[in-house]
Amino acid sequence: MTYVGKSIPRNDGFDKATGLGIFTQDVALPNMLFGKVLRSPYAHAKVISIDTSAAEALPGVEAVCTFENTTNKPFNTSATMITTNPGAEPVRDQRVFTGEPLYIGDEIAAVAAVTEKIAEDAVKLIKVEYEVLPAVFDPLEAMKPEAPDVQPEFGCKEHKNVCGEIVEFGIGDIGKGFEEAEVIVEADIELPRVKQAQMETHGAVASYKANGTLEVYSPTQTPHPTKMILAYALDMPESKIHVQNPPYVGGGFGVRIGLSGKAEILAAVLSMKALKPVKIQYSREEDFLASDTRHGGYLHCRLGAKKDGTFVALDTTAWLNTGAYATFGVELLGVCGACGTAGTYRVPNMHYKGFPIYTHQQTAGAFRGFGTPQGTAVVEAAVDKMAQKLGMDLLELRKMNTTKPDDKNWFPFPVGSVAINECIDKAAEGIGWKEKRGKAQSGNIRRGVGIACGTHVSNAAPFCVDYDAVYLRIEQDGSLHIGTGIPEIGPGSTTALIQVACDLLGVPFDTAVMKFGDTAAAPFDIGSHATRTLYAVSQVIRDAAEKIRKDIFEYAADFMGVPADKLDMSEGIIFGEGKEYPLSRLAYEAHLRGKQFFAAECKVPPNSLPWYAQAAEVEVDMELGIVKVIKIVSAHDVGKVVNPRLCEGQIEGGVLQGVGYAVREEMTYVDGKGFYNKGFHKYMLPTADDRPEIVPIMIESNDPAGVMGIKGIGEVGLCATVPAVLSAVEDATGVRFDAVPLVPGRVIDGFKKAGLIK
Amino acid sequence: MTYVGKSIPRNDGFDKATGLGIFTQDVALPNMLFGKVLRSPYAHAKVISIDTSAAEALPGVEAVCTFENTTNKPFNTSATMITTNPGAEPVRDQRVFTGEPLYIGDEIAAVAAVTEKIAEDAVKLIKVEYEVLPAVFDPLEAMKPEAPDVQPEFGCKEHKNVCGEIVEFGIGDIGKGFEEAEVIVEADIELPRVKQAQMETHGAVASYKANGTLEVYSPTQTPHPTKMILAYALDMPESKIHVQNPPYVGGGFGVRIGLSGKAEILAAVLSMKALKPVKIQYSREEDFLASDTRHGGYLHCRLGAKKDGTFVALDTTAWLNTGAYATFGVELLGVCGACGTAGTYRVPNMHYKGFPIYTHQQTAGAFRGFGTPQGTAVVEAAVDKMAQKLGMDLLELRKMNTTKPDDKNWFPFPVGSVAINECIDKAAEGIGWKEKRGKAQSGNIRRGVGIACGTHVSNAAPFCVDYDAVYLRIEQDGSLHIGTGIPEIGPGSTTALIQVACDLLGVPFDTAVMKFGDTAAAPFDIGSHATRTLYAVSQVIRDAAEKIRKDIFEYAADFMGVPADKLDMSEGIIFGEGKEYPLSRLAYEAHLRGKQFFAAECKVPPNSLPWYAQAAEVEVDMELGIVKVIKIVSAHDVGKVVNPRLCEGQIEGGVLQGVGYAVREEMTYVDGKGFYNKGFHKYMLPTADDRPEIVPIMIESNDPAGVMGIKGIGEVGLCATVPAVLSAVEDATGVRFDAVPLVPGRVIDGFKKAGLIK
Repeated sequence: MTYVGKSIPRNDGFDKATGLGIFTQDVALPNMLFGKVLRSPYAHAKVISIDTSAAEALPGVEAVCTFENTTNKPFNTSATMITTNPGAEPVRDQRVFTGEPLYIGDEIAAVAAVTEKIAEDAVKLIKVEYEVLPAVFDPLEAMKPEAPDVQPEFGCKEHKNVCGEIVEFGIGDIGKGFEEAEVIVEADIELPRVKQAQMETHGAVASYKANGTLEVYSPTQTPHPTKMILAYALDMPESKIHVQNPPYVGGGFGVRIGLSGKAEILAAVLSMKALKPVKIQYSREEDFLASDTRHGGYLHCRLGAKKDGTFVALDTTAWLNTGAYATFGVELLGVCGACGTAGTYRVPNMHYKGFPIYTHQQTAGAFRGFGTPQGTAVVEAAVDKMAQKLGMDLLELRKMNTTKPDDKNWFPFPVGSVAINECIDKAAEGIGWKEKRGKAQSGNIRRGVGIACGTHVSNAAPFCVDYDAVYLRIEQDGSLHIGTGIPEIGPGSTTALIQVACDLLGVPFDTAVMKFGDTAAAPFDIGSHATRTLYAVSQVIRDAAEKIRKDIFEYAADFMGVPADKLDMSEGIIFGEGKEYPLSRLAYEAHLRGKQFFAAECKVPPNSLPWYAQAAEVEVDMELGIVKVIKIVSAHDVGKVVNPRLCEGQIEGGVLQGVGYAVREEMTYVDGKGFYNKGFHKYMLPTADDRPEIVPIMIESNDPAGVMGIKGIGEVGLCATVPAVLSAVEDATGVRFDAVPLVPGRVIDGFKKAGLIK
Repeated sequence: MTYVGKSIPRNDGFDKATGLGIFTQDVALPNMLFGKVLRSPYAHAKVISIDTSAAEALPGVEAVCTFENTTNKPFNTSATMITTNPGAEPVRDQRVFTGEPLYIGDEIAAVAAVTEKIAEDAVKLIKVEYEVLPAVFDPLEAMKPEAPDVQPEFGCKEHKNVCGEIVEFGIGDIGKGFEEAEVIVEADIELPRVKQAQMETHGAVASYKANGTLEVYSPTQTPHPTKMILAYALDMPESKIHVQNPPYVGGGFGVRIGLSGKAEILAAVLSMKALKPVKIQYSREEDFLASDTRHGGYLHCRLGAKKDGTFVALDTTAWLNTGAYATFGVELLGVCGACGTAGTYRVPNMHYKGFPIYTHQQTAGAFRGFGTPQGTAVVEAAVDKMAQKLGMDLLELRKMNTTKPDDKNWFPFPVGSVAINECIDKAAEGIGWKEKRGKAQSGNIRRGVGIACGTHVSNAAPFCVDYDAVYLRIEQDGSLHIGTGIPEIGPGSTTALIQVACDLLGVPFDTAVMKFGDTAAAPFDIGSHATRTLYAVSQVIRDAAEKIRKDIFEYAADFMGVPADKLDMSEGIIFGEGKEYPLSRLAYEAHLRGKQFFAAECKVPPNSLPWYAQAAEVEVDMELGIVKVIKIVSAHDVGKVVNPRLCEGQIEGGVLQGVGYAVREEMTYVDGKGFYNKGFHKYMLPTADDRPEIVPIMIESNDPAGVMGIKGIGEVGLCATVPAVLSAVEDATGVRFDAVPLVPGRVIDGFKKAGLIK
C-alpha cells in the first residue's frame, strides 16, 4: 500500500485554512432573494388567524409562504423517511409550515425579499393571532395520562406521547437471567439535551425554475436523502431536484442529515413562489432554536452477574425526549439499545426497552453517537457498580465480559475483529491506571482516573436502508476521477477515500480527484452518517476498482503483448512479465480509439464493529465544584489506519465533544421562553481552556469485512467519555454522579448529598 | 413512440425567454477578480521589451501574466488537439501569450484585478516596445516564395506557409476520368471570411485552488475536449480540471469548440497566479477580434461528364485562409473536400487538394458547415455550368448523378438511406421551379430561382476521434436522470435527446432530466459539433437504455411473477402476461433493498449522411445592385424527425445564416488596422428585414444506422445557400457571380462587367 497508512494532507486543507473555501453562505446566484422565517413564540398553540397583507405589500417582498398557501403534505425531515426498511412506514408528522405550532420555534410562515433586511421587516409585519394551548416538556411527565397530547395522530396506542412505537428487543430469557444472577446492580443516568454547535449555521440556497427543476445548495450531509425528502414533500420527480454541497460543509455531527433545520425546504417553497433563487441563512440563535439536538432523558439499567463476574443478565430502559416531531426518535432509541447497551458485553440474557417521547420542545435527532453515548453511559455505570460490589478490578471485569470474535451476541452480522480488550489495556496504561486508580485523595483539589468502553457500528446496514454508489473513471491522461454523493463534512473522508482508491487501483494520489456532495455526481448514496463514510464507500470503490483494473489489463494486453491475467498496476504503471506500460499512455491510446475505462457500482456494505475504551483523568475542585478533565486516553480498534492524522483528528474532536457533554454543555429550558441557549455566549462549549490532554491510540485489528481491514471511527470518539469521566470523578471524590454535565451547581449538590460538604 | 415526433416545448425555453437562464456572464464566485487582455496592435511583430511594473503597482491589481512569466508550452486551441487519429500529431503552434504576435489581437499579456475598470486601466499601463515585422494577409500571396513566413516551424515543406500538410485524396483515376469526359466545365469561387456572431460573447470564469484543482465555467460546446486541452497546456491532470457550462450557452456555431477565443485559459493562468477566481468576459469587439472565424479563400473546380450528363471526373482545389494559427486548418480542408466536393455525386474519378494557408490574420476555425459550404459552393456552380453546357435541366442532371443508397463513393461507412432526389423535388416544387425557372426577366426588379444540394456528416467518426459517454440512472421514484458531457448550445438537443431516451426506455418525459455541459456529469464526450449531438448521443443512450431495461425486467420478474423476457415498459408501467407494475414502485422497492438501476456506456457512433437541397428565390434591383432573397425552400433528409419544431428551428436558423453568407456578411481587412468589423454596427448580419420566407421540409428516410432512423441536421441548413442564391441570381439576371457576399458594390461591378449596366 502506497498511500493507505500515510498522513497525506487533506485536499480541502488549504481552502479551509485560508478562507477561500466555498460554503453555503458564499453561494450567490443571479436574482437571488433572501428568506426569513416566522416562528411560533409559543410551545403549543393554534393559529386563529394570520394576515400577511402588510408583509406582501412591503416593497421588495417577492414571496410570502404560510401554512395556508403552501403544501400541507406531511413528511419527516429525517433520513428515516427514505431509509425505513421494506414494509415499515416512517412517521410523517411534519409539514413545511404549521397552523398548530408544537414548540417555540415551529415554522408558521416565511418571506423572500430582495434584501435580508426587507425580509426581516416583512416577517414582523405578519399578524398572527394564537390560541395558546397546554404544553409538556419533560418526557416522563409527557407519559402521564393527564399530560396534553403532542402528536395524537402519531402516538403509539399503549403509551401516552410515545412516538411511533416503543423499541423493545432482547436475547435469551431476561427473567431467567436475573434468577441465575448471584449479584445484581442497578444504575440510572439523566442526560441533558445538547447541541451539535457546528461551526456553520444552517442555511440553503434553492432555485426553482419554471421547467420544474429545483437546484439546492446546502450543507446537508446526505445529499441524496435530502433530495428524496424534498421530492416527496414537494411532489416533484427526484430527477428534477439537484442537491449539492457548495462543496464545503461547516461541520455535520448529524444535524445535517435529511432536512434538519428545514432551510432547504423553506428556501424551496419560497423559490417556487417567487420563481427566483432564495437564500436562507440562519442566525446562530435560529440555528440553536430550530434544528435537531441530541436526545436528552433518562436511562435505567439492571445488570446481573455470577460471583466470578460473568454477566448473565442486562436489562435497560431508556426514556428519551424526542421533542415535537419524531424525526429519528424510533431509530435512535434502537441504536441506544443495540449499540449503547448491548454489544459491548457478551450477556446471554439481554433485554432493552426504549421510549421515544414526544414533548412540546424542539426536536431531537441525530448527533454524533446517535444513542450510543446514552446507552453506554448507563451500562458502564452499572459495570462500575458491579465491579465495586464484586470487589473486582474494573478492567478485569470488563475484559472478561467483553464480546469475543466468535460470539454471536445480537448482531445480524459476524462480529469480525475485536480488539476491545487491547483498547482497555492501552487506555488504562496511557492514563497510568495502576499508579493512579483507587488512590485515596484529600484536600481541595482531588484527582482520579476512570474508564469506560463500548462499541458502535460502521454504518446503518442492515438495520435500515444504507448503501452507496460510485462512478469511477480513468481520464484520458490516466488520472482518476471519482464521482460520489457523499459529502465532506469535515473529517477528511474524501481525502482518505482517495488514498484507498489509489491503492486499490494502483494509480498515483496526485492525479486523483473526487467529486463529492453532489447528487448529479453519482447515483443514490446514503451520505455521511453512522460512522460509515470511509468504511462503506471504500467497499463500493473496491468493486468499481476491480472492474476497471480488469478492463485496463484486458486492453493493455494487446499493447504490451502480455496476457491480462499476468498484469498488475502500481503508481499508474502497468507491469507484467518484465514489461511496463504507463496507464497515462494506455488511456490516451484507448481514447484515440474511442475507448474509456470507467465503472459504475452500487453496494450495500457489510458492517463491522469499532471497539474503543476511554480512560479519563480528572481534577476536582471540592470547594468550587469544578470538574476539570485533564487527560483522556482514547484507544480505538479502527481496523486499519488509512490516514493517521485524520484518524487522530476524528478521535480528538470526538473526545472534546464528549468532554463538553460530560462537564459543560446543557440546553436549559425555560417554561414560556424556550431554551435559554440562544448562542455561544449562553451555551458552554468546551473552550481551549477545557481541552484536556488527548492521547489518541489507534489499534489495527484488520477487520475481515472491511476493505484492507478498515472500520469506522467518525462517531466513537465521544461515546464513552461521559461514563469514563463519571468513573474518574468517583475515583477522585467517592461520589458517583448519575447526571451530567458536571457543572459546579450539580457537583456541589452531589457533594452536599454525599455529606462531603455542608 | 410516445415522444419522438412531437414538438415538445424545449426544457430551457422558459429560462431563456424570461431572462432567468444563467450564462457565463452571470456566474459570480466569492472573491472573484476580473481579467482583461493586452493584445497586439500589429499583425506581425516582435516584443522587444515589456514592462508590467506600473500595472502591478496599481491598487486592486492581483495578477499580471505575460509571455515572460507564464507557461510557454505550445498547444492548439482547437479540438484537433485531442481528436487527431492514432499516429497523427496535431499542429501545436499556439501559446497562452506570445512575444511574437502573428495577428492584430494576438495575446501578449493579461491582468486580473478587483474590478473590470482597474483591470482595463492596468492593461493600459503595460509598456510594450515592438519591432514591427512584414506581414501577409491573402492566402495566395502567402504561398508566394517572397512572402514572409508566418509559422516557419509548422509549415509544410513543399508549400510556403501551408500549415501542417496539404490535404489530398481521390478515387479512381482523375486523369483518365477527364480523358473519358465528353464535356468539361470549370468553376471558381471566392469566399469571404465570416463570423459566427453568436449572441453571447466569449468569456470564462476560472477558479484555481491551491490543492491543484481548476474549476472552469464557460460557454464551450466541447466541455471534455476543452478540459483536455487545458490539462495539456497547463500540465495538470485532467481529473483536476472541471469544465462546465453555467449551464446555458449563447450560441455555438463552432466558435465554442476547444479554446477558440482563449478566454478559459487566460482566466485560468490569471487565477493560478492570483489564487482567486477570475472572470474574463469579452466585449463584442474583442470577440470579433480574437476568436475563430469561418475560413475564407478561393476554390476551383473542374467537372467532366459524358454527353448524357453522367459525371465521370471531378477535380477540386481549395486555398483557404487559416490565419495565424492552424487550429482546424487541416481538418477543415479535409471536410471541405470530403463532404463539400465529394459525396453528393457519384463520380468514379474524383480528386481533391486542399491548402490550409497561414496568414498574419486572425485564426479561422470551426463555423457551422466546417468546410462543406465552401466545397459545395464551387461544385454546385460547376454542376450548374455543366447543365447549361449540356442543355439539360438543372434538376435532372443533379438527380441522375446524385449518390444512390448502394453506392460505395468514398465514404468509409455505408451510404445508408438517401433521399437527396426527394429533397431536390420537394425544394423545386416548393419554390415553384417549373413556373419560375428560366423565365426571361426585364425591368429594374428581376426575379429568379435557383437550387443547390449536398451532403455532410452526422458526426466526425471515423475521420477523427469522436465518441460519447453517458450515465443513465433511474431515481428511487422511477424518474430518469441522464448525465452527459454534451452542452446545450441552442438547438434543443437536450430536449430532443430526452424524448429519444424516454421512448427507448419507456418512461414518461415529464419525469426525465438531463444533466449536461459538465465534465463531472459523465466520462469523456466529444461535445456538440459536426451535426452530431442528437444523432450520436442517441446511439450511446440506446445502449445504456437497453442495459437498464434488462436490469429492470430481471428485477421486476420476481415482483410481478412474470419472466423477464415477457416484460416490456411504456410510460413507466412495466407490463407483461396481463400484469402491470409501476416503475416508480419497483424503483422504490429496489431502493429499500439497496438496489438501483443505472448504466454507464461509451460508444463510437456510426455515421449517416444528411442530404439536402435548397431552392432560393431572389429579387434583384438592377439599378441599386441589391439582391434580396425572398424565399428559401430547404428540404432535408433528416432520417427521422424527433421534435419537428426544433428540427425546423435548426433549418431556419441555418438558412438565415446562409443568406447572410450569400448576400450580407463579410469581414473586411484593413492593412495596418485589422478587420474593420469590430461589432454588429460594422458587420452586416441579416436583420429581420433580410429574412426570406423560409420553408423547412423534413423528409424521413429512416436511416439504418441512426437510432429510430435519425440523422443529423445541425449544420446543414446553410451548406447550399450560397450556390442556390448564386443560381437564382443568375436565373434573374443572367450573371453568374463567382464571389459572395452579393453586396451592391460587387453586384453592380458584376453587372458592369457583364455589360448589363454601364
